[in-house]
Amino acid sequence: MSAVAELTIFPMDKGVSLSPYVARALAVIRQSGLPHALGPMGTCIEGEWDEVMAVVTACFEELRKDSARINVSLRVDWRSGPGGRLAAKPASVLEKLGQGGPRG
Amino acid sequence: MSAVAELTIFPMDKGVSLSPYVARALAVIRQSGLPHALGPMGTCIEGEWDEVMAVVTACFEELRKDSARINVSLRVDWRSGPGGRLAAKPASVLEKLGQGGPRG
Amino acid sequence: MSAVAELTIFPMDKGVSLSPYVARALAVIRQSGLPHALGPMGTCIEGEWDEVMAVVTACFEELRKDSARINVSLRVDWRSGPGGRLAAKPASVLEKLGQGGPRG
Amino acid sequence: MSAVAELTIFPMDKGVSLSPYVARALAVIRQSGLPHALGPMGTCIEGEWDEVMAVVTACFEELRKDSARINVSLRVDWRSGPGGRLAAKPASVLEKLGQGGPRG
Repeated sequence: MSAVAELTIFPMDKGVSLSPYVARALAVIRQSGLPHALGPMGTCIEGEWDEVMAVVTACFEELRKDSARINVSLRVDWRSGPGGRLAAKPASVLEKLGQGGPRG
Repeated sequence: MSAVAELTIFPMDKGVSLSPYVARALAVIRQSGLPHALGPMGTCIEGEWDEVMAVVTACFEELRKDSARINVSLRVDWRSGPGGRLAAKPASVLEKLGQGGPRG
Repeated sequence: MSAVAELTIFPMDKGVSLSPYVARALAVIRQSGLPHALGPMGTCIEGEWDEVMAVVTACFEELRKDSARINVSLRVDWRSGPGGRLAAKPASVLEKLGQGGPRG
Repeated sequence: MSAVAELTIFPMDKGVSLSPYVARALAVIRQSGLPHALGPMGTCIEGEWDEVMAVVTACFEELRKDSARINVSLRVDWRSGPGGRLAAKPASVLEKLGQGGPRG
């Protein structure tokens, strides 16, 4: 079983320079040890459902220390079957375009 | 403190008639006793962060009983301060348009 | 054909009191004449794809007049077949719970 | 001005093997010539608002050719100022963690 979750979390009371807060959330994600991938609009995390949700809550707890309003967007694609989907999902798309190569 | 979360959850392996599955998730939400509001694109739930996340997981556990792939979208607006925001948030918007009435 | 879209749009450079901006977006949606429903986490709009996307852009143009950073979340459920889904979608869910009544 | 949009689009009437459809959407994005980045949960696209929305509609038009129900999730972070944000946003986060390096 594998849940791939994309998490976007930021404070809404700190103006427009948000990268310091995103960095704190990313540090929490790294501490979890779960596979993850930082992107332009969020960070994808892979794990069992409960593992992923525990990390999401830990990120929230980190930001609530000094934020009065927090916005969270979470999208999860869960499926039974093997993991390794952070890499396998985009590779499968590229393969369909005939560009999978050794990584696809 | 109050988290307002909009949850959209559905199986991806059951075709396009999804309302029976959404109904099962809504039944789980109702059992939680948390304030909620069913809408066209999801159900909004209000509570403390941990309460809301527990309901989200309970909905997931209900659907995973017979689904091999599940899609979840969750958006949370958390802020310190009083609750009652399921009604207060839209009322505040209508008030700005001069249409709040006694509830706005 | 019918697209049901939930739009959440707000400026990120105006602090935490966002209802005046949401109200301006809602006014734009109303001017479109499309069926819509204001909720705690966004406004659902129903129409043809191009109609809905034109309204989304009009909301964005309204807020960009005085915002330097804008956050948009849009989720669309499009399907072939009849419209009227702003009411029909939640009614279908309630019907499955045995609570549809004459409208369900 | 720069809009960074993450698009997730898939048919809901084709079962769970979705990568052929995601590949068709990605091909449309590539044809646009806009900077983009494929990820595990969606593809990020950068451009002017109208450019990005035109690509989103083109992806939708591609999938509607043979789909009866389509799910779209779109999140946009628009801001005035320079572009190049597909790379600059994650780099800014890593820099805060002291790991920006030559790319950050």
